[in-house]
Amino acid sequence: MPLGQRAGDKSESRYCGVEVLDFPAGEELPAVLSHSLSSSFDFLLAPLVDPDYRPTPGSVLPVAASDLVLGPAQWSSHIVGKISEWIDLDAEDEQLRLDSEITLKQEIAWASHLSLQACVLPPPKRSSCANYARVVNHILQGLTNLQLWLRIPLEKSEPMDEDHDGAKDNSDMSDTVDSWEWWNSFRLLCEHSSQLCVALDVLSTLPSMNSLGRWFGEPVRAAILQTNAFLTNARGYPCLSKRHQKLLTGFFNHSVQVIISGRSNHNVSQGGVLSGDENHTEDTAVRHALSPYLDYIAYIYQRMDPLPEQERFEINYRDFLQSPLQPLMDNLEAQTYETFEKDTVKYTQYQRAIAKALVDRVSDDDVSTTKTVLMVVGAGRGPLVRASLQAAEETGRKLKVYAVEKNPNAVITLHSLIKLEGWESLVTIISSDMRCWEAPEKADILVSELLGSFGDNELSPECLDGAQRFLKPDGISIPSSYTSFIEPITASKLHNDIKAHKDIAHFETAYVVKLHRIARLAPTQSVFTFDHPNPSPNASNQRYTKLKFEIPQETGSCLVHGFAGYFDAVLYKDVHLGIEPNTATPNMFSWFPIFFPLRKPIYVPSKTPIEVHFWRCCGATKVWYEWAVTAPSPSPIHNSNGRSYWVGL
Amino acid sequence: MPLGQRAGDKSESRYCGVEVLDFPAGEELPAVLSHSLSSSFDFLLAPLVDPDYRPTPGSVLPVAASDLVLGPAQWSSHIVGKISEWIDLDAEDEQLRLDSEITLKQEIAWASHLSLQACVLPPPKRSSCANYARVVNHILQGLTNLQLWLRIPLEKSEPMDEDHDGAKDNSDMSDTVDSWEWWNSFRLLCEHSSQLCVALDVLSTLPSMNSLGRWFGEPVRAAILQTNAFLTNARGYPCLSKRHQKLLTGFFNHSVQVIISGRSNHNVSQGGVLSGDENHTEDTAVRHALSPYLDYIAYIYQRMDPLPEQERFEINYRDFLQSPLQPLMDNLEAQTYETFEKDTVKYTQYQRAIAKALVDRVSDDDVSTTKTVLMVVGAGRGPLVRASLQAAEETGRKLKVYAVEKNPNAVITLHSLIKLEGWESLVTIISSDMRCWEAPEKADILVSELLGSFGDNELSPECLDGAQRFLKPDGISIPSSYTSFIEPITASKLHNDIKAHKDIAHFETAYVVKLHRIARLAPTQSVFTFDHPNPSPNASNQRYTKLKFEIPQETGSCLVHGFAGYFDAVLYKDVHLGIEPNTATPNMFSWFPIFFPLRKPIYVPSKTPIEVHFWRCCGATKVWYEWAVTAPSPSPIHNSNGRSYWVGL
Repeated sequence: MPLGQRAGDKSESRYCGVEVLDFPAGEELPAVLSHSLSSSFDFLLAPLVDPDYRPTPGSVLPVAASDLVLGPAQWSSHIVGKISEWIDLDAEDEQLRLDSEITLKQEIAWASHLSLQACVLPPPKRSSCANYARVVNHILQGLTNLQLWLRIPLEKSEPMDEDHDGAKDNSDMSDTVDSWEWWNSFRLLCEHSSQLCVALDVLSTLPSMNSLGRWFGEPVRAAILQTNAFLTNARGYPCLSKRHQKLLTGFFNHSVQVIISGRSNHNVSQGGVLSGDENHTEDTAVRHALSPYLDYIAYIYQRMDPLPEQERFEINYRDFLQSPLQPLMDNLEAQTYETFEKDTVKYTQYQRAIAKALVDRVSDDDVSTTKTVLMVVGAGRGPLVRASLQAAEETGRKLKVYAVEKNPNAVITLHSLIKLEGWESLVTIISSDMRCWEAPEKADILVSELLGSFGDNELSPECLDGAQRFLKPDGISIPSSYTSFIEPITASKLHNDIKAHKDIAHFETAYVVKLHRIARLAPTQSVFTFDHPNPSPNASNQRYTKLKFEIPQETGSCLVHGFAGYFDAVLYKDVHLGIEPNTATPNMFSWFPIFFPLRKPIYVPSKTPIEVHFWRCCGATKVWYEWAVTAPSPSPIHNSNGRSYWVGL
Repeated sequence: MPLGQRAGDKSESRYCGVEVLDFPAGEELPAVLSHSLSSSFDFLLAPLVDPDYRPTPGSVLPVAASDLVLGPAQWSSHIVGKISEWIDLDAEDEQLRLDSEITLKQEIAWASHLSLQACVLPPPKRSSCANYARVVNHILQGLTNLQLWLRIPLEKSEPMDEDHDGAKDNSDMSDTVDSWEWWNSFRLLCEHSSQLCVALDVLSTLPSMNSLGRWFGEPVRAAILQTNAFLTNARGYPCLSKRHQKLLTGFFNHSVQVIISGRSNHNVSQGGVLSGDENHTEDTAVRHALSPYLDYIAYIYQRMDPLPEQERFEINYRDFLQSPLQPLMDNLEAQTYETFEKDTVKYTQYQRAIAKALVDRVSDDDVSTTKTVLMVVGAGRGPLVRASLQAAEETGRKLKVYAVEKNPNAVITLHSLIKLEGWESLVTIISSDMRCWEAPEKADILVSELLGSFGDNELSPECLDGAQRFLKPDGISIPSSYTSFIEPITASKLHNDIKAHKDIAHFETAYVVKLHRIARLAPTQSVFTFDHPNPSPNASNQRYTKLKFEIPQETGSCLVHGFAGYFDAVLYKDVHLGIEPNTATPNMFSWFPIFFPLRKPIYVPSKTPIEVHFWRCCGATKVWYEWAVTAPSPSPIHNSNGRSYWVGL
């Protein structure tokens, strides 16, 4: 039974599981499952094979229950397999290594036979786990649907200055500082397999928020909440610290399922609760020992705000890669116009900017004698014409509007709009590309909406340079400038989606994408700025910028899969418009961010800056970006000569 | 005219060039060329375009000489183009950057028009040279034959502890420690383009030998020797320090051409030498001002030992990748047998080992009464049968030989050998695979030559485990053990050859290759050892070894393209056989090293160890290796499940 109904949330994080700690011997598993389901848990994390088993030739695997005892449908919907924890593939003892390899392969084969959706692999027992990774990599090559969730304790200690002297410590982990590093090594050795995921063990202490944030860019499928991570409230019930609550909310927002694990530490006498073992099954009316924890988790879930309407509308676009529009080279379709015209916030900002410009242009004294010539370049189906006329009405300024549009289909719609609205005397429609139109007079104000997610990426600079010929020397361009921004991100899901194409070209393409399962690693920085009217119109629109990003020290090391890109535009004076996260215009939905991937994700050790270069290159028929990282280690130059991705002029 | 005749050397390092320092204005170039050629230089490094030129629309490129003044054949055989040195693509000044980009592209286009073989690019002017690399990368995408040689000063200063305070220094290079780092960033940004090479400027001071050694794994095409790197001998002639001489010999051995550069500092009054400008051309009888330097270079060249005969025979195999033999799965051809049988050193070692074993086995007292049963398993066309019989004769021991061979074609040859030599009474031929032969009696000595370049890689362990059934419990196996070794190497040529296949499989294959243009970065370490007879015959022949290589600190940083592999075998007691560089058997030619590549070369910062893992994996029908690096940064696991490379059982 889901944790609750949250408007718009159809993600897997509605479901909550429970870990079975002991081996359900003698085919006890169906009873444990039935008890847990009736106690509102949705699934079990359960051992598949007797932990006392060691491989012996000819022996039958001592499984918890066969597919006759528990049907295939139950296995696949209600059980996540837990691989035997004694397995130690990097042990010094060769026999233990070999036994571990055989057993791991047998257990995964058994899980595949049962059509399980996922198995949890025990955490690496030491910081060096290459042999473990090799065997898992073997197995991954042969899997079709089964996911493997590597269990990783969520911990990051601050590095200590003194040397460790526990040389004879049984566990090699004593010197480990950051469990993210284990995950990172493991997945690099396994070539970013999309079926290798993470199950995080959430303990009573938590690393810093920046360090936790990294995990939101990783394929975390489950958060295993230990009962001893819970506190006790005044009434004796389990509850979580504020930081744990915040983390949990983050998990819920990122489709991470919670699994409750451990012995009950809260003997709450409600509904016939018994303390002790969660495997108690004599009576299904007896409440599950971990029910109080589940109740609390459900409370946290239900307490969350419902998803905003816009977010619900866009939920299917989350982390879905789209090719950017080519509105200059291609003609947009009616559907696309219609979608973008609905963005009232955007046009309200335009109207405010135009109103301010009109007032600045024509003083109150000159209102009756002066008519302002305003040209909408790239008028589409007319939303900026409407905004302009509304601004004129609002400010009492007289306006003469030219609506210039290169798409002949949009021009047809424009004509009927003008007729419908009765604007014939106010608006002249020009069916032409602004770059070659010979205007009959010069404009006071040039209004355009040619911006892409990265500002200049839909060739606004080239178009407006072409239109500048018919702007008066003291004329105003709205927008008057725009700037692009980037930030380094972890985005393993996007990386894997691009990798699935198995070519370089897809790694040298920028994508429009509603970023969701990502980690933002450093504050954004500006990349390119364009001003209009262009103060030196003969200057090239080529650009080159080198940026250095410093990742906060408490974050630790991280993996950069690429760069998220945004823009901010100054429409006129203090009226701006943009999607740069720190200054984004609220409730505007016309632009998703852009994503520039890296062919090979770059490992950034703690305290090491990232140096990245972006170029905007211009050719006779196209404009494109190139990008490269030079620190901490040089990448190839991406998209050389625009070979993989370009925007047509 | 070549520097001299050196037996076997057909490499380009026989040719010596001279750098033209001034711009040969007014079409002076043909005269300079003719004077240089008549002074025994083979080619010029000459500027192509007036260094005062800056791009202006519509202007004609002011070239040194057109293809009418100097014919295409002369251009392509005698001129290496020198790109204008003022070019600075990473300058702060945007106009200078843009002018540089245009000029560089124009000059390279002109060089391509002239069919030049190579152009020298000026050295990076600052440690950050991403824009320079981007433009060169653009150009490389469009080149077919022209090579670009990036000029790099050969310098590596020891890092200093105090901070530099020359913040206002014009050159950003003041903080540069190691010029190899520039090259490395540049080529990584340019994706290891095979047409991007290096021209090293050799200065008067040289870095340590370990640091110089790195360059022998890089595509160095020219060493530009500055006249001020020369010393003066007692008679006033130019000469080089011992370390410079050694470096020069190294260049000659690695096909690196020398180019002499600079003003004459040695006014030697011989043959009418005039001091001053090497562009003096009034009289071709006038000796070239740099002739004394050329004479000295030729002297160094001629003084080198001729190439040994074996080396001359193998010269065409240098750095040529071959797939390892599969002698178990495939039958070898007569030609292959014949080649390997010529390795007398190898069979002499076998004979010594067998003789020692016979003497140990049969005391002098028992010589007349005891006959030793010796089985040659994998007898081929009989070379080990011959060695065995010679050992018996030498030691006076009686021998009964079984020659077991699975290749029916080799068995035919064996029969005729026995007949020819009259060995019918001594040798029994068995046409069978040793793994399934039912022997009529047990052997005292088992002799085999099943070793590959990496020891066990031709499945000697599996074959000998199969033959062990018919070895007496106290019997002797020759070889009695073998061990494989690896070392990390720089090998850009091999990397590029593998990359040309444009797939992952070729990067997950081991190659047999006569390693030549490589840099050995750390001493070899042992990987796997096999003992025969196998003390625990039921144990698996799977192996796993983790190794840590420390690169000498004075080497500096380096790039690891993969691992060179070798073996050493103990035939019997102190008689060994092998190709491990430190202990290699002299004058043996049966094995070239093996090379395990890395899909992505790994940058190893100075003072950072390399951690590498090797696995020998065994399946029902095949044996394969997997390998991975985990430090300084994890690589993918190579050849998972033997998907790309395996040896058939």
